[in-house]
Amino acid sequence: MIQPIETVLFEQDNVYLLDQTLLPLERKMLLMADSAGLYEAIKNLRVRGAPAIGVAAAYGLWLGIRDMPKNSSREAILEQLQATKNYLATARPTAVNLFWALERVQQKILTTQPNDIINAVLEEAHAIKAHEMNTSNMIGQYGAPLLRGVSSILTHCNAGSLATTGIGTALAPIYAAAEAGQIIHVYADETRPLLQGSRLTAWELRQAGLPVTVITDNMAATVMRQKNIGAVLVGCDRVAANGDFANKIGTYGVAILAKEHGIPLYVAAPFSTIDFATPDGSRIEIEERHASEVTHFAGVQTAPSDVDVFNPAFDVTPAKYVTAFITERGVIRAPFLEELQRFGDGYS
Amino acid sequence: MIQPIETVLFEQDNVYLLDQTLLPLERKMLLMADSAGLYEAIKNLRVRGAPAIGVAAAYGLWLGIRDMPKNSSREAILEQLQATKNYLATARPTAVNLFWALERVQQKILTTQPNDIINAVLEEAHAIKAHEMNTSNMIGQYGAPLLRGVSSILTHCNAGSLATTGIGTALAPIYAAAEAGQIIHVYADETRPLLQGSRLTAWELRQAGLPVTVITDNMAATVMRQKNIGAVLVGCDRVAANGDFANKIGTYGVAILAKEHGIPLYVAAPFSTIDFATPDGSRIEIEERHASEVTHFAGVQTAPSDVDVFNPAFDVTPAKYVTAFITERGVIRAPFLEELQRFGDGYS
Repeated sequence: MIQPIETVLFEQDNVYLLDQTLLPLERKMLLMADSAGLYEAIKNLRVRGAPAIGVAAAYGLWLGIRDMPKNSSREAILEQLQATKNYLATARPTAVNLFWALERVQQKILTTQPNDIINAVLEEAHAIKAHEMNTSNMIGQYGAPLLRGVSSILTHCNAGSLATTGIGTALAPIYAAAEAGQIIHVYADETRPLLQGSRLTAWELRQAGLPVTVITDNMAATVMRQKNIGAVLVGCDRVAANGDFANKIGTYGVAILAKEHGIPLYVAAPFSTIDFATPDGSRIEIEERHASEVTHFAGVQTAPSDVDVFNPAFDVTPAKYVTAFITERGVIRAPFLEELQRFGDGYS
Repeated sequence: MIQPIETVLFEQDNVYLLDQTLLPLERKMLLMADSAGLYEAIKNLRVRGAPAIGVAAAYGLWLGIRDMPKNSSREAILEQLQATKNYLATARPTAVNLFWALERVQQKILTTQPNDIINAVLEEAHAIKAHEMNTSNMIGQYGAPLLRGVSSILTHCNAGSLATTGIGTALAPIYAAAEAGQIIHVYADETRPLLQGSRLTAWELRQAGLPVTVITDNMAATVMRQKNIGAVLVGCDRVAANGDFANKIGTYGVAILAKEHGIPLYVAAPFSTIDFATPDGSRIEIEERHASEVTHFAGVQTAPSDVDVFNPAFDVTPAKYVTAFITERGVIRAPFLEELQRFGDGYS
């Protein structure tokens, strides 16, 4: 039985995050003292992956209000909650789960009595965590049949257990297949600049005892040509209503390479990541991060000091490259505008 | 006037190489004491780039025989020369210039008197160096007109001055255009695992005062979509008779991305890099290098200890992705089998 790795842990009234910036060399849980600590952890990718960010943010809302006086008024609590929400929402702009989770918590307590709000927020954070765990399992169940007869796949970044509170999104079908006795070899793009592929995907697959080969991002085309890759599986940070999707920088290139080699591209997408309010990919805000992520590698300077850098954290892949989305409600194929809507009916 | 950077220097009877593994942080010339030192320098990429490897190897032949006794017999010298050639030829398998230069030196002294052989080998090394310098200039002259109206290009790895003994191959048209007053912005893929793009291409363009933006390899697709890239320019390590070519790992992917975005792909190819004896790309031996290049950087571990790695140093791009080869004899377009042959007539 594949065990999810604890990324967001609630224990004895405390919230802990696995500090993913230290992996694979060190596995350390960080105590989140307050919402500022949680903001920092999201911003600096100690917790990352759209579903895990959403769960962490929900706990962050609770951290923002948990120490308020017992006799606080409803207005005071809601005001503090709103302030915390506004604050956490600026941690990272691209993954929609952050906003989705914050909104979901806020909606949940619209009619809650003042005395119960703090606890209700915590309960909703637990519920979101459980929801994402279940979502991972369902994506695994729906995705595994797509991989029948597939011996190797390629993935980009980390959309595994470490990106969720369950067994992952893009890697969930790999884990589900493994439980059913089908061992699929994963080629993991290292995923510069922050190496989520070599540091995280490779680590968690090895933890689960599954075969993985790390490659640099620019080897993906050669691997597709030479290594009998049966599918490309990726996660996503936001899916627009028309099926365009944002994911870790490099995904767009991988999608083009998959098409050129006739390899299907499956995008694992919890419904919490689908943003029906965004009509297409051009409207998705793309986070740009600091130049030093590119000019330095593991603390060592690797480019001239005076050089320009372009460092978008995500890219947008047009829907036309997507073979199917794997969601917790089933496998969704084109036409995406209609089908995403149809599968999503009633989701909140 | 753009000044080539000295990569292979002969001074006061000594051979020096610029240690490119130390760039951009340190610029240091290494004295080559013997052919073993030169072998090590090629193998560990202290000198790299097909043309520069060829020049260095030619000097390596001289280093292998220069200390032989004055009264050595012709047979003894040729035997030692052959042994040195066999030795140097195993330093790296993919760049054909290594073999071409060794062969050219050996052919040169077929009828030379014993007393003159050592000096003739040195003279031929000088001649190869001058030849590659001139070749760079001609590639610049033929390539620059292809870039009229182009404001930005993308390149992969380093095919600049540092890869040659002149102003480069893929970058030669950029330098030539700059001398004619057209400043072209270069987007440089960093080129994992050894970062020749961020360490070398960015450094030499900044040395020349030209604008360059460093990106991680997986940003190339986004840059092609967003940054008005007018051409992709790359070098090559070996061109097969049919126009398939080997170049730094990642070139094949870049070629596919260029095609998808309707951007022309120009391959700068000195004739010393064209291997008419290799019918197509499938026959080119691809060097695989040590896993630690992928799992570590600058001594820092970035992947789990027990992970598998695939680390080919080069890939092969099929001729169908090539818009044109830029050579010192002119711009060569399809059909490549016929046209490469026609342009190459009489080359040796």
